[in-house]
Amino acid sequence: MSAEPYTLVLLRHGESEWNARNLFTGWVDVALSEKGEAEARRGGELLRDRGLLPDVLHTSLLRRAITTANIALDVADRHWINVRRSWRLNERHYGALQGKDKKQTLEEFGEEQFMLWRRSYDVPPPPLDDDSEYSQSRDPRYADLGAAAPRAECLADVLERFLPYWHNGIVPDLVDGKTVLVAAHGNSLRALVKHLDGIDDETIAGLNIPTGMPLVYRLDAELTPLTPGGEYLDPDAAAEAAAAVANQGR
Amino acid sequence: MSAEPYTLVLLRHGESEWNARNLFTGWVDVALSEKGEAEARRGGELLRDRGLLPDVLHTSLLRRAITTANIALDVADRHWINVRRSWRLNERHYGALQGKDKKQTLEEFGEEQFMLWRRSYDVPPPPLDDDSEYSQSRDPRYADLGAAAPRAECLADVLERFLPYWHNGIVPDLVDGKTVLVAAHGNSLRALVKHLDGIDDETIAGLNIPTGMPLVYRLDAELTPLTPGGEYLDPDAAAEAAAAVANQGR
Repeated sequence: MSAEPYTLVLLRHGESEWNARNLFTGWVDVALSEKGEAEARRGGELLRDRGLLPDVLHTSLLRRAITTANIALDVADRHWINVRRSWRLNERHYGALQGKDKKQTLEEFGEEQFMLWRRSYDVPPPPLDDDSEYSQSRDPRYADLGAAAPRAECLADVLERFLPYWHNGIVPDLVDGKTVLVAAHGNSLRALVKHLDGIDDETIAGLNIPTGMPLVYRLDAELTPLTPGGEYLDPDAAAEAAAAVANQGR
Repeated sequence: MSAEPYTLVLLRHGESEWNARNLFTGWVDVALSEKGEAEARRGGELLRDRGLLPDVLHTSLLRRAITTANIALDVADRHWINVRRSWRLNERHYGALQGKDKKQTLEEFGEEQFMLWRRSYDVPPPPLDDDSEYSQSRDPRYADLGAAAPRAECLADVLERFLPYWHNGIVPDLVDGKTVLVAAHGNSLRALVKHLDGIDDETIAGLNIPTGMPLVYRLDAELTPLTPGGEYLDPDAAAEAAAAVANQGR
């Protein structure tokens, strides 16, 4: 195992079936689209070709992140590494917006409210009713959470529930010298990047992380990034894709 | 979590590309064939339809077992459970036979030697040379094993290296009341079944475990099977498939 700089690789899942249909997804456990599977393979090829080989995987409890990691690691011949999963890496819970069309929501509520829900740091969407077909209230994977299970989250909520897993789950692997892959979601990864790079509450609104593109952080002994913002293995494709994410709902 | 009887589900990987070509595989890390992927899906459907839902997965370090488990658990909506992996669940190391055609080997060495290698309890095949293209001597996943890495194994060797993982890795999950899925290989699962059912060294030679068919053991507090031999979720298909395995190389 190498000493510092520590190596952390972030991978946002490839396009899901609901990304493709432009629906708010959150904790609804949809599958990857065919395009998303291809993005995951491409992510694995980049890891393999750059010799960036994870020693351990951390995923959310959601299929689109798990499948992305399974595909990418198989391509990179690292399917055999250890795995840990946590709900704390899940996507932001989108509350009552889960299952709604992004474009319709924009038209119904207007640009200002839409952007508040999508990008404000501390305004959560309306909470999801436990009776909704999109509720996770009867899902066995969250049974241990009980009443603490979120029914809607803003990015500040995501950061708060993510940080304990960062400290207890991910950092111990990093300081062991392991190359750590975190396969997760747009907003759980934005929370992680906000923490790593010390981004303020306003600036984080403008940061988009593209799907299926490995983002590498080298961290010093203080866990400070050597390069602020990290480095995409394919920077041109990442810049193009981030611009596309910013235009969702248009 | 339920108390005893404890629930243990064994799943041999679906057909691999080398099973389809009738080659000895052992520790060579080949992929599933399309038929193998279909078998894995069917295995997941059986788990789902019988409500036999694993809480934790144990796999070998080999792609064909890992992919089988990934596919089956995704179908059963249990992709999010915890995972542990160990080389101690790997297939028997087939030594210098790895990569060889089973039919050609039968013709070259004769029925008696062929069956000794395939089914005797304590006669290993000739060891694999470290320079062979099929050697795992430079494979990072076995780097920790060093000189202890096997170069050929008989079933007795498999049982010996499997048992520490049984006691330290699998039994703790069982006595915690978890439904445990073990996704592994023909010979590592034969070693497990020999141990569980107390099968003698001669009788185990005649036992074949079919691919992709969940085999369920309910165990009492002494870890003794309530039903010797366990129960296949699809017993008719399992009997037919086991007969086909016995005829390999013919």
